[in-house]
Amino acid sequence: MQGSNSTGRKIRIAVDAMGGDHAPHEIVGGAVQAAKELEVEIILVGPEAEIKSELGKFDVTDLPIRLVNATEVIRDGEQPIIAVMSKPDSSIPVATRLVQSGEADAIVSAGSTGACMVSAMKYLGTLPGIDRPMAGGPFLQLSPETSVFDMGVNVYCQPSDLVNFAVAGCVFARSFLGIENPTVALLNIGSEEGKGNQLAKEAFPLLQKSGMNFIGNVEGSDIPKGKANVIVCDGFVGNILLKFCEGLGETVSHWLTKELKESLPQAELEKVTTKLWRLMSPGAVLGGAPLWGVNGLVTIAHGSARAPQITYTIGEAKSCVEKGFIDLLKKELEKAQALISA
Amino acid sequence: MQGSNSTGRKIRIAVDAMGGDHAPHEIVGGAVQAAKELEVEIILVGPEAEIKSELGKFDVTDLPIRLVNATEVIRDGEQPIIAVMSKPDSSIPVATRLVQSGEADAIVSAGSTGACMVSAMKYLGTLPGIDRPMAGGPFLQLSPETSVFDMGVNVYCQPSDLVNFAVAGCVFARSFLGIENPTVALLNIGSEEGKGNQLAKEAFPLLQKSGMNFIGNVEGSDIPKGKANVIVCDGFVGNILLKFCEGLGETVSHWLTKELKESLPQAELEKVTTKLWRLMSPGAVLGGAPLWGVNGLVTIAHGSARAPQITYTIGEAKSCVEKGFIDLLKKELEKAQALISA
Repeated sequence: MQGSNSTGRKIRIAVDAMGGDHAPHEIVGGAVQAAKELEVEIILVGPEAEIKSELGKFDVTDLPIRLVNATEVIRDGEQPIIAVMSKPDSSIPVATRLVQSGEADAIVSAGSTGACMVSAMKYLGTLPGIDRPMAGGPFLQLSPETSVFDMGVNVYCQPSDLVNFAVAGCVFARSFLGIENPTVALLNIGSEEGKGNQLAKEAFPLLQKSGMNFIGNVEGSDIPKGKANVIVCDGFVGNILLKFCEGLGETVSHWLTKELKESLPQAELEKVTTKLWRLMSPGAVLGGAPLWGVNGLVTIAHGSARAPQITYTIGEAKSCVEKGFIDLLKKELEKAQALISA
Repeated sequence: MQGSNSTGRKIRIAVDAMGGDHAPHEIVGGAVQAAKELEVEIILVGPEAEIKSELGKFDVTDLPIRLVNATEVIRDGEQPIIAVMSKPDSSIPVATRLVQSGEADAIVSAGSTGACMVSAMKYLGTLPGIDRPMAGGPFLQLSPETSVFDMGVNVYCQPSDLVNFAVAGCVFARSFLGIENPTVALLNIGSEEGKGNQLAKEAFPLLQKSGMNFIGNVEGSDIPKGKANVIVCDGFVGNILLKFCEGLGETVSHWLTKELKESLPQAELEKVTTKLWRLMSPGAVLGGAPLWGVNGLVTIAHGSARAPQITYTIGEAKSCVEKGFIDLLKKELEKAQALISA
């Protein structure tokens, strides 16, 4: 167990009460539930009057919840960089500064991922060797032990970035899936070495000497087949795949609904198609995902999250703090970077 | 109608009798059937003795089938370039030279796509402005009016290559799907102009001035949703998507088989999962696909093709000749290239 937690006091989670499609009501509801269930201290960040009024709807007697005022609000559609820079007293920057100053151990936000990222880079900085946060995690519940990095943040990549993605994926596989020696593969258009675009060709030898369990190139079909625990690619490819998969899940579920409407009872059909849609939807895999590579724990929940998902994401953030996630990632990144520059 | 066909004589298809997993038996069977049904002349290309023996298994009395000897055979796993160069008398180069000399109007092969491509480039050359053939066509039967170019040949692309892909896609949409004014989109990671990697950013303004019905960027989810008739990307992205989709189709079909095994009769369940697999399998969309961008009609059938798919692919090749496909593509490429360099 790490830092603040080893003193025995509760892990403190700063919750962005204003982020997400259903803020502040569902966010506050989820945070209240977390304070009841999860042995965490909740710091709700948002405009004081509004949050107080929301809190009034719940019984919060004796719960470890406090409020930190944020006087500004970032609106949908605002450019993340401009929003964070021009509204330093909105909930995301205020929550981030709570981690910076050590008043909170982690942030949970269902708000703009871009704003969280900019705020994290501004106030927390990135880990050594990392220029931008990395986005990744399990891609498909159909192959739940396979994660993909990067899923969209890093459009332009250096070969060494792909090594960092692999490190992040390995930390994820070990910490969250309990896989001791995760396999790492490079997403490519053929299995032989020497295949692919310039980035793939240059990343291959680096991954070989990175000290990780690198099994070589894999193809697109190997993601659903779960051929490796960690599959790395640039964020352009990762994001297109991710969204393709989301769209396909929707289309296939609709098709199945039509195809089987005479053969299955309505309720059963709905159960199957909803389950399939979820299994094919990368966004639905986790309650939230940490921003990989920033020097502090920022956990992003889905914009559509309701109270139960917020509670769940707070639980995940707590678990990351307990596991010493940031220190672990930092150590593993340093190890791989030393090996590839040797 | 084009060239040879306008004289009233039959369209002549050179069939690579030695290409594919089930050559020569299934290929010869499919060719015989085409000669019976399709009003085409078949030129079977392969080792004379072997093909004669195969032909002996069918009743070919009065059918317009002749044989051209190919004394060498390209084996599975041979490097395409080396194979074509070192075995100029194998069936693919011999068939290609029949088109070069005007003795055949088109080639159909279920053999190595790489060997067909190298042979086409060597003997037929590429159309003006085209360095390498382009691979594309409908991606998913779930969105049958949407084609994707390039699906794997062009790993390194210049922005103008993406314009050529769009032209090919428009010719496809008009000739094969009857879509008069097909919409064209750029596969990207966001809908706004200025998104994406360098290639996407530079291709966007070229597509705008290409004279095509360019609707801007689309995301991965827009492929299954059929948001545009033609979606262009580099062959690295296209190939990864294609294989991802193939693998996912298999995984989803397996999942569905397990999930519904108590609810549906075995036969119905198999029908549904097979249909879904097929709908999700880009390779299964067409009997064959032309090699886009070479100066002659080379149609590639799937390596696993059996007689009915070979017959179907021969029908497609015939239809391309009738439509004057190569001249049409050449004219459209020239038009777009003039506009983007203006």
